[in-house]
Amino acid sequence: MTEYPRFGAGLWHFATYVDRYASDGYGPARTTLDAIELAGQVEDLSVVDLNYPFTPGVGLGEVKDALAAQGLSAIGITPEIYLRKFSRGSFTNPDPGVRKAALDLMHEAAGIVRELGADYVKIWPGQDGWDYPFQVDHRTLWKLAVDGMRELAGAHPDLKFAIEYKPREPRVKMTWDSAARSLLGIQEIGLDNVGILLDFGHSLYGGESPADAAQLIIDHGRLYGMDVNDNLRGWDDDLVVGTVHLTEIFEFFHTLRKNNWDGVWQLDQFPFREDSVDAANTAIGTLKRIHRALDRLDTAALAEAQERQDAMAAQRLVQNALFGEVQ
Amino acid sequence: MTEYPRFGAGLWHFATYVDRYASDGYGPARTTLDAIELAGQVEDLSVVDLNYPFTPGVGLGEVKDALAAQGLSAIGITPEIYLRKFSRGSFTNPDPGVRKAALDLMHEAAGIVRELGADYVKIWPGQDGWDYPFQVDHRTLWKLAVDGMRELAGAHPDLKFAIEYKPREPRVKMTWDSAARSLLGIQEIGLDNVGILLDFGHSLYGGESPADAAQLIIDHGRLYGMDVNDNLRGWDDDLVVGTVHLTEIFEFFHTLRKNNWDGVWQLDQFPFREDSVDAANTAIGTLKRIHRALDRLDTAALAEAQERQDAMAAQRLVQNALFGEVQ
Amino acid sequence: MTEYPRFGAGLWHFATYVDRYASDGYGPARTTLDAIELAGQVEDLSVVDLNYPFTPGVGLGEVKDALAAQGLSAIGITPEIYLRKFSRGSFTNPDPGVRKAALDLMHEAAGIVRELGADYVKIWPGQDGWDYPFQVDHRTLWKLAVDGMRELAGAHPDLKFAIEYKPREPRVKMTWDSAARSLLGIQEIGLDNVGILLDFGHSLYGGESPADAAQLIIDHGRLYGMDVNDNLRGWDDDLVVGTVHLTEIFEFFHTLRKNNWDGVWQLDQFPFREDSVDAANTAIGTLKRIHRALDRLDTAALAEAQERQDAMAAQRLVQNALFGEVQ
Amino acid sequence: MTEYPRFGAGLWHFATYVDRYASDGYGPARTTLDAIELAGQVEDLSVVDLNYPFTPGVGLGEVKDALAAQGLSAIGITPEIYLRKFSRGSFTNPDPGVRKAALDLMHEAAGIVRELGADYVKIWPGQDGWDYPFQVDHRTLWKLAVDGMRELAGAHPDLKFAIEYKPREPRVKMTWDSAARSLLGIQEIGLDNVGILLDFGHSLYGGESPADAAQLIIDHGRLYGMDVNDNLRGWDDDLVVGTVHLTEIFEFFHTLRKNNWDGVWQLDQFPFREDSVDAANTAIGTLKRIHRALDRLDTAALAEAQERQDAMAAQRLVQNALFGEVQ
Repeated sequence: MTEYPRFGAGLWHFATYVDRYASDGYGPARTTLDAIELAGQVEDLSVVDLNYPFTPGVGLGEVKDALAAQGLSAIGITPEIYLRKFSRGSFTNPDPGVRKAALDLMHEAAGIVRELGADYVKIWPGQDGWDYPFQVDHRTLWKLAVDGMRELAGAHPDLKFAIEYKPREPRVKMTWDSAARSLLGIQEIGLDNVGILLDFGHSLYGGESPADAAQLIIDHGRLYGMDVNDNLRGWDDDLVVGTVHLTEIFEFFHTLRKNNWDGVWQLDQFPFREDSVDAANTAIGTLKRIHRALDRLDTAALAEAQERQDAMAAQRLVQNALFGEVQ
Repeated sequence: MTEYPRFGAGLWHFATYVDRYASDGYGPARTTLDAIELAGQVEDLSVVDLNYPFTPGVGLGEVKDALAAQGLSAIGITPEIYLRKFSRGSFTNPDPGVRKAALDLMHEAAGIVRELGADYVKIWPGQDGWDYPFQVDHRTLWKLAVDGMRELAGAHPDLKFAIEYKPREPRVKMTWDSAARSLLGIQEIGLDNVGILLDFGHSLYGGESPADAAQLIIDHGRLYGMDVNDNLRGWDDDLVVGTVHLTEIFEFFHTLRKNNWDGVWQLDQFPFREDSVDAANTAIGTLKRIHRALDRLDTAALAEAQERQDAMAAQRLVQNALFGEVQ
Repeated sequence: MTEYPRFGAGLWHFATYVDRYASDGYGPARTTLDAIELAGQVEDLSVVDLNYPFTPGVGLGEVKDALAAQGLSAIGITPEIYLRKFSRGSFTNPDPGVRKAALDLMHEAAGIVRELGADYVKIWPGQDGWDYPFQVDHRTLWKLAVDGMRELAGAHPDLKFAIEYKPREPRVKMTWDSAARSLLGIQEIGLDNVGILLDFGHSLYGGESPADAAQLIIDHGRLYGMDVNDNLRGWDDDLVVGTVHLTEIFEFFHTLRKNNWDGVWQLDQFPFREDSVDAANTAIGTLKRIHRALDRLDTAALAEAQERQDAMAAQRLVQNALFGEVQ
Repeated sequence: MTEYPRFGAGLWHFATYVDRYASDGYGPARTTLDAIELAGQVEDLSVVDLNYPFTPGVGLGEVKDALAAQGLSAIGITPEIYLRKFSRGSFTNPDPGVRKAALDLMHEAAGIVRELGADYVKIWPGQDGWDYPFQVDHRTLWKLAVDGMRELAGAHPDLKFAIEYKPREPRVKMTWDSAARSLLGIQEIGLDNVGILLDFGHSLYGGESPADAAQLIIDHGRLYGMDVNDNLRGWDDDLVVGTVHLTEIFEFFHTLRKNNWDGVWQLDQFPFREDSVDAANTAIGTLKRIHRALDRLDTAALAEAQERQDAMAAQRLVQNALFGEVQ
């Protein structure tokens, strides 16, 4: 059996959540340090992606210590450019002052990446976009999105910036909404240190094949990271990975392996009503099953079936690997 | 011109919101009294549906006074059976103690309906349902939903209970998810005082034709109320009414008028990033346009086109009414 | 290991297809007899559901002989009330003459059910519904649908009539569109011999949980038959079963077994670009895997997890059964 | 009032259709010449896009004469690379022989464009893509799509080739599926004569804002043509334009006008159950209303509202223009 990859998680996996209905939250609030402690309880978790700013009062030193205490390291930092201040947009906010504030926060986050020796600044501009027909001038909006990203990444040539695209939510429509659109924007930006963090669930409910999206991004040399979860193809449910789309998550990881992509297998799940640690352990258990199934997959026979585009033959090979049994 | 209907709104229209990203809220928190004051600033608003409990510290007397001061009355009370305590379900919570707590809150809300002389207790069990395949036994869940509603409504034969169905959110799948399922459940309940609050947007993104759903519910004698908004058919966006589906909202109101349904035209909008009063005024302006267009609609010619199921003829009549111009 | 169920297929599985683009068809036309011969080549296929009328020139005697020669029997007959003549509706056609022609064809199909000793007449009114807002009067349309079904089933009290609901296609919106709506209509019909043929894929892309829909229909005593396939939740793709939704098809069959429903496991697939026999064999291979996994499923532990609505525990049990391996 | 644009239609608007259910067709077959004659009966129709090959037995001379007799000219030619022969793909077919046959047909179509003086060869590779997870190697598939298009367009530097992207149907997933992906592919092709035919409905049900897609394509200098219709955002219903999404079609045309795009306003509708000429006349009537509403739109005030991203102000301006009445 091949060796397992490193497993990771967004630190928000270990937070509690609010939504527009349970406005008092699905559980008591947790600090950055609480979340790190919970993350440390997950078996086989090696890295985390941390939101920034940390909980008020929590300093960088404490975070470093907490990570070390749990045997965790930082893979990325996610500046919270989607809080109240930025609710009408970060890069695309109509107010230049707010745009500057968003950039300032991202510059700060870049500093944290350096301090923690993380791999990338993750940029998820969830509030950039629009809600209503006729709300925005589309050329202007796209230009703000692209120019802002260029300004940000241009200021930190030593760091990598990973855009996490998503079709929608919280904006009714987001600016960076698909793999292809992101690649197009990255070409316009024209810098070497801007890439993509591919979220399996975003791709799935956006109508892409996540495997195809991964291949496209890899072929453009821009796959900086990825995370996984699951949903019902209509919304970013952020369910535990593998609970719905076993076959497609398997195709996704097969594509990564075929391309020798050897990064972290990372979780972006929101266990609103579940125990965080239980949800993470269940997910990593599934990912290990997937990993072992990849070992069992007859890739030569699969390649040959795909050359003929023979869906039935491919399916039988996949099931043989997944079900792990001789007929 | 026929007289305008009474216009109403859920009081939450004048709240601020949180979601899982802007966890610090889209604006500073507002009390029940703040919201009533804002509602009073809307032109032509007559009634509101109030969440219960009110903001801690706000008493019923104050609410009565505040409503009176703004010339508003209560049409319904919506018990908040979707807060943290009920996040794993209200009627269908696996814990009998929580189910009892939910019923207790609803009994209390029934008392408020009497005190305020409102029309109905609105029951929106947004946390009842499931998130994952295999999470629940479906027979048990449905039985809990139906039995609980029967117990509640049976205890208050003098009041009306309006179920607001919705396909999903915050649960990945909700128990009361469609007009037909709700009517089926109401038949199982077997009481005269349980009906439906039809939300245009829920119907639309659930794959129904809201006009057809209204007709079906009316034909079963159960349309206790309705509210309107808009969305992109994939999620409960709660956009301002008429901003996307002008023709279908027009068909919805045409169906109500044809059936002599003369209740309140009520807003259920979530203006996350808009000024609440501006959003309500814009919506009511649109509703008045719709109302005037109904006056212009040649209903005899339309009935005749519908008898032939002639979609093109119907469409031309509709556009003549909507665009309000002689060709 | 428990014994496998009987497997079946709609005979159209072995036809070739046309669509609005490949108007010359995805392959040369096949007669009823050709299709029966192909069905006979599938391992482990016991029964078929036959479209009626048969190909012009093919008589009932020949069909009987062909079925016998292949060791097949008829489970149902599907009158083609969706061909050109009925393209504006069968039960709900605006023209009374066409409605009568549709009923005549269904009466004929009832006779064939008797002749072949099949279990039911399957009624799939794919052209009943509407395409445009304002096209129909919804009360009239529903009344036509219900009254027509009552007239049909009332004339044949010795036979069972199974309505196969579907959200849409070929009509943009179909009249019998969901489990709940169908049960509501069946109650209005008020006869004992009208039930439901539950299509897994229709339920899935209609936003239902197929397992929940099965339970609801069983609890109303109306599950006359079912068929399976797969899709991407946005359309009735009629893909080969299990190729996308392994977990949910497993939950569906678990629900049937739990209720001791012991009918035929039937395929409703459209292998447009695949070899029909290969597609059916692949599907039945998957269904056997599912069946064996049901044997492995720890149902006591699952019931206990479901009582707590513990999605993670349930998921681990399901994966243990599906993956068929000791951790 | 500004002058109306030229109106056009795909000639298939005047055909009859088959689908997988009404396999005997929604009406008697029509020849290319029949369709041209019907197109000629539409008021204000100037140009058509013709499928190629023409009906067997119909020569180019006859087509020219028929067009002339109806006062029509050809805007584009659409080679039918989606018929049976190409049902497993045209550019991406696994069989090199079929790929060559597809190219041969497209070369022929290029000749017809020259003969008729049309504007472009329209390339709609509806069968290029996949149906099942694991069916194809995604890198290979995309390379075939891009290389084939380059080979085609490279052979005819005097002509324009307009790719019409679409998310899906008839393939479960199509290769050229969005505006951004198409622009990315066009960059890889590296030729000046490959652009996009933007179909409003494809964009809408693919989750794009058609106005945003138009702006993006225009900003890349690749908007060769467009056509319009309507749908319910879940499928390519090809309904008559403006029957559902009045506001968004208005935003689409506003975007075109703002960019001084002055091409043909073209219909791509499939009136399965409607009279073709009636459907086209109704559509053009709506388009004229839209055109007059554009004249009424206060574009300066709108630009100012969009600068603030003020959705409510924009909406009021839009309704003032659409409803065509002083408050």
